[in-house]
Amino acid sequence: MSQYLTHSGLYTDLYELTMAQGYFLSGKATIHASFDYFFRKLPFGGGYVINAGLSDLLAYLTDMKFTSDDLQYLKHQKFQEDFLDYLEQFRFTGDVYSMREGEVVFPNEPVLRVDAPLMEAQIIETVALNILNFESLIATKASRIRSACGTRSFMDFGLRRAHGWGGLQASKAAMIGGADSTSNVLCGQLYEAPVAGTQAHSWIESYDSELEAFHAFATLYPDRCILLVDTYDTLRSGIPNAIQVAKAMEEKGHRLAGIRLDSGDFVTLSKKSREMLDEAGFGYVSIVTSNQLDEYEIERLLAKSAPVDSFGVGTSLVTGAPDGALDGVYKMSSFDDQPRIKISESADKILLPGKKQVVRSFDKSGCFMEDLIVLEDEASVMYNGDGNEVLLSPVITNGNTCIADYKLSEISAYCSDRLSKLPGKLKKITVSDTYPVRLSQKLETLKKSMINNIIQNIDEKD
Amino acid sequence: MSQYLTHSGLYTDLYELTMAQGYFLSGKATIHASFDYFFRKLPFGGGYVINAGLSDLLAYLTDMKFTSDDLQYLKHQKFQEDFLDYLEQFRFTGDVYSMREGEVVFPNEPVLRVDAPLMEAQIIETVALNILNFESLIATKASRIRSACGTRSFMDFGLRRAHGWGGLQASKAAMIGGADSTSNVLCGQLYEAPVAGTQAHSWIESYDSELEAFHAFATLYPDRCILLVDTYDTLRSGIPNAIQVAKAMEEKGHRLAGIRLDSGDFVTLSKKSREMLDEAGFGYVSIVTSNQLDEYEIERLLAKSAPVDSFGVGTSLVTGAPDGALDGVYKMSSFDDQPRIKISESADKILLPGKKQVVRSFDKSGCFMEDLIVLEDEASVMYNGDGNEVLLSPVITNGNTCIADYKLSEISAYCSDRLSKLPGKLKKITVSDTYPVRLSQKLETLKKSMINNIIQNIDEKD
Repeated sequence: MSQYLTHSGLYTDLYELTMAQGYFLSGKATIHASFDYFFRKLPFGGGYVINAGLSDLLAYLTDMKFTSDDLQYLKHQKFQEDFLDYLEQFRFTGDVYSMREGEVVFPNEPVLRVDAPLMEAQIIETVALNILNFESLIATKASRIRSACGTRSFMDFGLRRAHGWGGLQASKAAMIGGADSTSNVLCGQLYEAPVAGTQAHSWIESYDSELEAFHAFATLYPDRCILLVDTYDTLRSGIPNAIQVAKAMEEKGHRLAGIRLDSGDFVTLSKKSREMLDEAGFGYVSIVTSNQLDEYEIERLLAKSAPVDSFGVGTSLVTGAPDGALDGVYKMSSFDDQPRIKISESADKILLPGKKQVVRSFDKSGCFMEDLIVLEDEASVMYNGDGNEVLLSPVITNGNTCIADYKLSEISAYCSDRLSKLPGKLKKITVSDTYPVRLSQKLETLKKSMINNIIQNIDEKD
Repeated sequence: MSQYLTHSGLYTDLYELTMAQGYFLSGKATIHASFDYFFRKLPFGGGYVINAGLSDLLAYLTDMKFTSDDLQYLKHQKFQEDFLDYLEQFRFTGDVYSMREGEVVFPNEPVLRVDAPLMEAQIIETVALNILNFESLIATKASRIRSACGTRSFMDFGLRRAHGWGGLQASKAAMIGGADSTSNVLCGQLYEAPVAGTQAHSWIESYDSELEAFHAFATLYPDRCILLVDTYDTLRSGIPNAIQVAKAMEEKGHRLAGIRLDSGDFVTLSKKSREMLDEAGFGYVSIVTSNQLDEYEIERLLAKSAPVDSFGVGTSLVTGAPDGALDGVYKMSSFDDQPRIKISESADKILLPGKKQVVRSFDKSGCFMEDLIVLEDEASVMYNGDGNEVLLSPVITNGNTCIADYKLSEISAYCSDRLSKLPGKLKKITVSDTYPVRLSQKLETLKKSMINNIIQNIDEKD
């Protein structure tokens, strides 16, 4: 197993290196190119995407390397010595412009732009897509669950169903999008995320009785005791035993923090559990649920007035179900300072040519009103501070990171603030409205004239 | 970013450590427990699952550690000094029994069993689930795509849509399940997987014309040239240009390997492309397609006789779409040599008690006939070599790996061999049959008597 997964230059598609060598051998490697990262389709039937993954991408770009083992491997794959000599010295030296991590973003607008020597810009394509597509997907999913939970708390419990080593990024992105805490201890350690958890059925099973298991846990963790009540029978065994333990805890000056429901019909079970706890004088004991939850199920439970205080969400959160992927792409828009375009068979896969910027305008109440994609040289004219914001800012200049190393909590707070500026109709679980993203007149004209030129060229050859 | 993601003891759910400390403080830590890993639901509406992830799990279990930084972090999380002293020395010392990586497995049967001191068996739960659930999901998906492709070749192109650092495991699992090659260079380096790739639209865009771009690529890579033909217009520009290049290559004694279609209607485009290539005398040029493929779309294309030779499959493969997760769990079945059970609100979440083994029987043609879950002490009696196989074998003994370090190609070959023994009706894309998995009489009796005991206990208290 690779211990350098997170900065290996080989964590890429073969064709990036094949093309890079091609550019190198044909003398085009150092000509500057611009690539845009953008996505085409909103996931989850929602109205927006949360931009996430930037900090991991920056860390990769400033750390990535080709080791001597890597070069040896590439030599076996028939790569040429002089190109391998170049890779040995490889360092990303370009510029990167990006929307902030935690930003609310929309289809077809460049969320990140790379301006770099062609070969460098090409080599980083795969990993940029890998990181940004995944973390943005999960942050977006988390924000939807956050919204469904309202004021209730929401914990990421997904590590066991996350996609292998991607589980660290899944938890991080879940925190960006609005989870209050995560069960993932490594995420807690690396990013200061609050960690949370209760106990498993195995704890209960390792004692001769449920009551004994509950007492033992309460004695060990009197200040954070949440009891899993469904091992044998929630209402006939779990809750009555939890109530006995809550009494014993009170006698010692402690309070049972909560009970966790992990199977069965949560509407009925949470109501009956609440009733039983309240009747016994334990109105302060929280009800936590977990098991196959998502934003729809949470909305349904709360619509049926299920008295749940906290939701543990796993699989659907960390896998970004049901979509499973954001369709982000990374496409060349300019080469040697000339705009480039691709048209292809599918009209929706046509690219926007030229180095671009995105300008967001706000209404009088401070809500997002419209995004305008403009050519870079238009941006300075348009950004007059009068209710407009230019969204792409430098994050790497000449290969060096030039933004603050934001804490995870700062990125989450930024996300939450930006979501508060998104019109409510676009924050619903299922939306029918579309946020307006327009092209400037100049960009529209450039695009049309380039398409016409290409079609004309093809027609002439026919 | 952690550079020790793949062996950090903190890559786990908080509650594993909370419980482990609880066992430690209450003197139960070293009592032996057995846990089973199994799943309940077949993914993709299919008839089987491919067991994958074992080699990564073994590597983790033999490498995992708690560094001094980790212990410092846990101290801040209020873990106690004597427990942290234990973790500092932590090493997994238990036994692990498993079905082979690449095995064809079924719901509710233990695929892997851990027999270890309670605390150790508990600590490894999350990472075992994380690795096995994910890799098994992807290997299963790959085997379905393999089956749809028939004799055509199939490449993993998914890294850009894989879940972050999980993309390495995704490619590895795709190879186990039947991909012929992968675009993921790191997977190629670490596991000797064949790597493959063509070129991107950016290559075409970086030249003044498509023809020039094609010629340049063919000159650089005359022995592996596949041309992406949809940048401007597949049939009016891409294919005619590819034919010109194929002619020029022939004049120099080379052969154009293929063309790649990446958008549009593949049935029409592949047929017309084939026609044009054949008419020009290039019957040997392969047709590769990529873009939103999965087993259903591949079946559809082949049913319509689309002359496609090779499929590049990305998103749906590496995300395990549409399921996104295998629902595998890790449950205690025995503690201190006594069988344990959990019943819960949902009948389908009831566990099978006791240390178990799985015996597979074969019919006369050598096909799988039935799996029987038995108590461990029954297995030796039942395994008389007469058409039966015991499926769980030791893979770790006293903390040391005790199986061969199988190459990825060996695991793939094993998988392919085992799939050839699965009845055809269970290999269809959508199945209506179920493979028979039964419980031995002894296990059935034990389960029933334990459930009755629990219910009786609850009833008596009422």
